[in-house]
Amino acid sequence: MALYQDLDRETLLEMKAKLEKEYADVKGRGLKLDMSRGKPGASQLALTMPMLDVINSHSDMHTKLGNDTRNYGDLDGIGECRRLLAGMMGVEKDNVVVCGNSSLNIMYDSIARSMTHGVNGCTPWCKQEKVRFLCPVPGYDRHFKITEYFGIEMINIPLHEDGPDMDMVEEYVNNDPTVKGIWCVPKYANPTGISYSDETVLRFAHLKPAAEDFRIYWDDAYSLHHLYKDKKDRVKNILEACEQAGNPDMVYIFASTSKISFPGAGVAAIASSLKNLEYIEGQMTIQTIGHDKINQLRHARFFKDIQGLKEHMSKHADLLRPKFEAVLSALDKELSGTGIGTWTKPLGGYFISFNAMEGCAKAIVAKCKEAGVTMTGAGATYPYGKDPLDSNIRIAPTFPSSEEMAMATELFILCVKLVSVEKLLEKMA
Amino acid sequence: MALYQDLDRETLLEMKAKLEKEYADVKGRGLKLDMSRGKPGASQLALTMPMLDVINSHSDMHTKLGNDTRNYGDLDGIGECRRLLAGMMGVEKDNVVVCGNSSLNIMYDSIARSMTHGVNGCTPWCKQEKVRFLCPVPGYDRHFKITEYFGIEMINIPLHEDGPDMDMVEEYVNNDPTVKGIWCVPKYANPTGISYSDETVLRFAHLKPAAEDFRIYWDDAYSLHHLYKDKKDRVKNILEACEQAGNPDMVYIFASTSKISFPGAGVAAIASSLKNLEYIEGQMTIQTIGHDKINQLRHARFFKDIQGLKEHMSKHADLLRPKFEAVLSALDKELSGTGIGTWTKPLGGYFISFNAMEGCAKAIVAKCKEAGVTMTGAGATYPYGKDPLDSNIRIAPTFPSSEEMAMATELFILCVKLVSVEKLLEKMA
Repeated sequence: MALYQDLDRETLLEMKAKLEKEYADVKGRGLKLDMSRGKPGASQLALTMPMLDVINSHSDMHTKLGNDTRNYGDLDGIGECRRLLAGMMGVEKDNVVVCGNSSLNIMYDSIARSMTHGVNGCTPWCKQEKVRFLCPVPGYDRHFKITEYFGIEMINIPLHEDGPDMDMVEEYVNNDPTVKGIWCVPKYANPTGISYSDETVLRFAHLKPAAEDFRIYWDDAYSLHHLYKDKKDRVKNILEACEQAGNPDMVYIFASTSKISFPGAGVAAIASSLKNLEYIEGQMTIQTIGHDKINQLRHARFFKDIQGLKEHMSKHADLLRPKFEAVLSALDKELSGTGIGTWTKPLGGYFISFNAMEGCAKAIVAKCKEAGVTMTGAGATYPYGKDPLDSNIRIAPTFPSSEEMAMATELFILCVKLVSVEKLLEKMA
Repeated sequence: MALYQDLDRETLLEMKAKLEKEYADVKGRGLKLDMSRGKPGASQLALTMPMLDVINSHSDMHTKLGNDTRNYGDLDGIGECRRLLAGMMGVEKDNVVVCGNSSLNIMYDSIARSMTHGVNGCTPWCKQEKVRFLCPVPGYDRHFKITEYFGIEMINIPLHEDGPDMDMVEEYVNNDPTVKGIWCVPKYANPTGISYSDETVLRFAHLKPAAEDFRIYWDDAYSLHHLYKDKKDRVKNILEACEQAGNPDMVYIFASTSKISFPGAGVAAIASSLKNLEYIEGQMTIQTIGHDKINQLRHARFFKDIQGLKEHMSKHADLLRPKFEAVLSALDKELSGTGIGTWTKPLGGYFISFNAMEGCAKAIVAKCKEAGVTMTGAGATYPYGKDPLDSNIRIAPTFPSSEEMAMATELFILCVKLVSVEKLLEKMA
């Protein structure tokens, strides 16, 4: 296909007219589709329905240790569920505390606790002059919302194919005591789908933070979320790496089964050093008497172990792979060689990251919306919702059906073309 | 029975010798009982087991409005569960947000939010010189732990038969802008079991707080937890009263089904004015994508409505009444007229509050523990764990079986007598 940038004004004007007509047609169809969030589709949710039979009125409600899951107790989670999530997170059972239904809430609590009480006895952040976080971009909007909410200054760090720009990360973390954390999605990153290389993980583990209360916020949201059986990313174990590098307390790992069992009705956990967990549990015991242990039991008995989780996730992969491939092949067919967009081809996770020509993302998302397809807001993948190049768009192909996906992708591509042509004409003017 | 205070030294010494022998005997039995926490007994939990069949793999998982409870969404709770808890809390559905499993966690979050972000836009408490809370005593230890954890200064307010000392409450709240809140358990209070009179509720509603960010923290933990069918406390509706008094935003009401369905696997809620809830939801949307809606659906379909909840709780009453009566009749038989103890005779709730002679509570609890019965720590019912008179002991009769309860009560009474005799002898010396 010809590079749009090489086309002359007349050709562009012709294309514009044609695209506008197509757009008007699509708009007339009255679409109403949502590609904004990383939501599992109904067919994925159906896979977990048998879990709801695992615990019933005839079940023995006691843990292997004999604790009654129906009553108060087990603040750090029941043993069998801690073991299940430890398997998923690649750590020992004792390094895991299973909480409620939301890993985001655990992250929020970690930041909130650091604000009011400080990290492991350090000065509370609310009493420090300035607190800053490193934010690999593009990244997960809900991470950035938490730090923004607490008035933490965010610094963009470019995210490469193999992880964040580690030269910049080292420069900041090792020299600037106001830098207290970095948001990471190490595997199938939201939204680019890249995974951190071993070297990246090792460089993380060998950081020499200027701030004693610096922590790596390692959101292992997609550890089992492969799309292919034969092509899987793997990420080096960060907790082990930190221990070996003499930084045993430097990382908090977060995970949940929200995109494995049910969003909202899953179980979430934090993994870290025993020292960190002891401090965290000291706060948790003020906050709650305990989490939902019946749901923990339900998960432990249904999935049994890491092998059970993996088998379940291979069924998810079978459902998601065609959706991702449909989007990717449409993009490839319609946009490759045009110079008006690049996109990632992830092996797992929930998103495809699309980069439009500079200054086009907002207009593309607005045009999609006008015709009935909601994308994640342009800019959402950057701190403060500000994409400096106005270029990145997150595509979430998991929730719509295949047919809806096809329609939405067709519209998206149309909008990319139309906005790009308009932008090029504008530049010529 | 004779007043112990009237006995001469010789008689007391004789009694002491006899009681010490009895104590040694009981100690020899090797008891291991826990009367420390307000935990439901196994027979109560069994009543809720059928709830676990209500949602199974064949269930329609959609709410009445058609939302899929298995997926993300409905941050403020599903409609049918909001309606259920609204019935329980005596408010409209729109005044309720259903959250996770723990009302304590909602209270904690309310305080945490006020610390870092302030109440509805007021200066965050962490940036105010001094923040103080009124604490009716004796009260609930976990309330006091939250305010202590956040460095909030606590002021003891005597709790009378009809509620907190409202003269003192008005004096503080209406004049002191550092007073930001008061912890209340309005019905079957923890631990005394008293309920607030209409006059108390009205005086609360008509407060004229010096601090704009003053709120009443109304922990309606035992609203349906009656012991008798024909004798039930009722408490005037505080949200309505506040509205009518022109203070619509002054109260947060908290409740849960922890002691109705399952501790840990229940649902919890906050009720307040629409203005307050809007502010709270603005924070919740940063904190989590949503709570466990499947468990909300399970509760809504099992209990159906307030009538269903009431019927369920009358079965709890049948189980708990004999336990309370066993303790009360033993206390009556052994201690009335002795002058060494007074106790409450609640019509509901989870506790009996016992007042020993001044300076005896710690010693009694320690003696019980030494012989194998764990009571709530003496002092726990006061801020900072400091009972100024060292007199109050909380008795939690719900968890042990009737036989265990009888043994534990026998030991408790023995320890009260022994410690009191020792104290009287000490005074004579």
